[in-house]
Amino acid sequence: MTERGSESNRQWRLKSRPVGMVTESDFERVEDPVPTPGEGEFLVRNLFFAFEPAMRGWLNDVKSYVPPVALGEVMRATCVGQVVESRHPDFQPGELVSGLFGWQDYTVTDGQDSLLRRPVVKVPAGIRPERTLSVLGGTGLTAYFGMLDIGGVKAGDAVLVSGAAGATGSVAGQIARIKGATKVVGIAGGPEKCGWLTDELGFDAAIDYRSENVNAQLKELFPDGVDLFFDNVGGSILDDALLNMAQFGRIVICGGISAYNETELPPGPRNYMQIVIRRLTVRGFILIDHMQDANRARSDLSEWLASGELKGREDIQQGFDMAPATFLRLFRGQNIGKQLLKVADPPLPVK
Amino acid sequence: MTERGSESNRQWRLKSRPVGMVTESDFERVEDPVPTPGEGEFLVRNLFFAFEPAMRGWLNDVKSYVPPVALGEVMRATCVGQVVESRHPDFQPGELVSGLFGWQDYTVTDGQDSLLRRPVVKVPAGIRPERTLSVLGGTGLTAYFGMLDIGGVKAGDAVLVSGAAGATGSVAGQIARIKGATKVVGIAGGPEKCGWLTDELGFDAAIDYRSENVNAQLKELFPDGVDLFFDNVGGSILDDALLNMAQFGRIVICGGISAYNETELPPGPRNYMQIVIRRLTVRGFILIDHMQDANRARSDLSEWLASGELKGREDIQQGFDMAPATFLRLFRGQNIGKQLLKVADPPLPVK
Repeated sequence: MTERGSESNRQWRLKSRPVGMVTESDFERVEDPVPTPGEGEFLVRNLFFAFEPAMRGWLNDVKSYVPPVALGEVMRATCVGQVVESRHPDFQPGELVSGLFGWQDYTVTDGQDSLLRRPVVKVPAGIRPERTLSVLGGTGLTAYFGMLDIGGVKAGDAVLVSGAAGATGSVAGQIARIKGATKVVGIAGGPEKCGWLTDELGFDAAIDYRSENVNAQLKELFPDGVDLFFDNVGGSILDDALLNMAQFGRIVICGGISAYNETELPPGPRNYMQIVIRRLTVRGFILIDHMQDANRARSDLSEWLASGELKGREDIQQGFDMAPATFLRLFRGQNIGKQLLKVADPPLPVK
Repeated sequence: MTERGSESNRQWRLKSRPVGMVTESDFERVEDPVPTPGEGEFLVRNLFFAFEPAMRGWLNDVKSYVPPVALGEVMRATCVGQVVESRHPDFQPGELVSGLFGWQDYTVTDGQDSLLRRPVVKVPAGIRPERTLSVLGGTGLTAYFGMLDIGGVKAGDAVLVSGAAGATGSVAGQIARIKGATKVVGIAGGPEKCGWLTDELGFDAAIDYRSENVNAQLKELFPDGVDLFFDNVGGSILDDALLNMAQFGRIVICGGISAYNETELPPGPRNYMQIVIRRLTVRGFILIDHMQDANRARSDLSEWLASGELKGREDIQQGFDMAPATFLRLFRGQNIGKQLLKVADPPLPVK
């Protein structure tokens, strides 16, 4: 595949606000002229788009931690690209960078990002660029801060992770193991994902929520209860976990993908009074509050990757036109590891 | 009213497990012989029964923090009584004591309580005995530990309390004010309760959930959001509060009376993903975990009562036969302050 030298800037813009499940037709493919960087700016040619469940929330016209993507706006997404033209002293043509560039071929940026507090960062030497979108990107950092700073995982904990074969869950579970959790169990959909967790990532067990009774499995796997539950899913999985928490257990709410495409908010966790009965602490968090500690997280994650203690995985789809379809893979449970889309090959010709 | 010298021990026993709303016919009135204390035990004649919403949970045959009341067992309840006969070195006839004595005239006890970790305590000199069942009893302690040890209330907090005219909520809100909260708002049912909160207890405002739109009132009263929400109710009130929390706010789940009499568990809080969006911390707790600090709590509460900073209120019904009916008042929202039932007048003749 080569799409170099494109003279136009292909974009996927938000065409309509999805009601219920997001569809490909909620996005519109348009072509704009390639933009020109002004003083202090640089032009990036995107190579990979990254996909995260939280992006679904950005499509709803509701107040949240960031404003929604506007109708007609290029779909917001973190990407890796290559600098192809620069009027910025710190970024040189040819350098690989990651930032909130959106679903388009070309992006002009000044390197800052006030929206998600993720300024443009350079891909470190010796690191595959797609890795900076996965383990060393927002999802890896989310797993890191969620497990350590919010969940306070420690040696001896019995840990449960939902969405465990996803980008964040798979890293979260491995961090628990690295930190000395005595048991790490993942919940995922289907034998392939479950096998990956136990055979390659060192999870002690995996529960296939599509074919197994989650509550019964939790009772068997955690006779003394779950000390720390890292939840990406919500719904019935959160309800089942609530019934199997240890006294004084902790629940980190990282996300709730089971409800992101519902037309109306589904019922919340029926068993929430277990928070009282079992004296639980439930905490939510968002990565943007922790970006001041990003270097610590990237340093630890890089070290664990280098030592082989931590394994990453990217699910890489191909071709610019596949952006909406690739996004939908998240909500169909099709991705294993980080969902990416490759839209061009490096290195690119630089001006 | 005098019921002294009764030669039999009237009891209210659990006859059937309530399905949905508890009814008077779930209890059976029987008479047993007055029991005789053995070595190391003493006999108590009960004067007041105390009623708490949590007692409803003890009627369900489910695993919880305490075993359920068995069918045929005397209904479990905290009471104040007078020692009328003693073979225990530390308790003398005539002394007023409080403990988990149950819905009956007479109780034999050794002064210990392994169930709720509330050993029998003596009513301090100069304190009205019913006060040791309200502000200085389990509900006052619950408010104290919930607000301070779990909620971490501090000067400058904007605080919301639901079930605010109940025994626990009314004390919780006053503690927030004493600790320097800049705003204390209570949610209660009806103008009488709301007026009591603002006119007598020093709440800044009260929301009448029966006649007002709670969400709209919260938006108006908390333009910068709620820093600390102390919830006794759950249901739609918890959902409305979730939409009005400040970033990094704290929610203390003390109870959830709105669901205690439901046949099936109602849906949980639909808006629970606000825990993520607003980065909330939600904590549950149960008093029994804090009883090692009970003296600190009683000392502070007594001091605030003495200085007039803290006001208590008891709703005292009359007569042994009214025990089940008095219990039901809690779930009809009829009580203001602590619900008690007076079953005999002190002082009693002692053997």
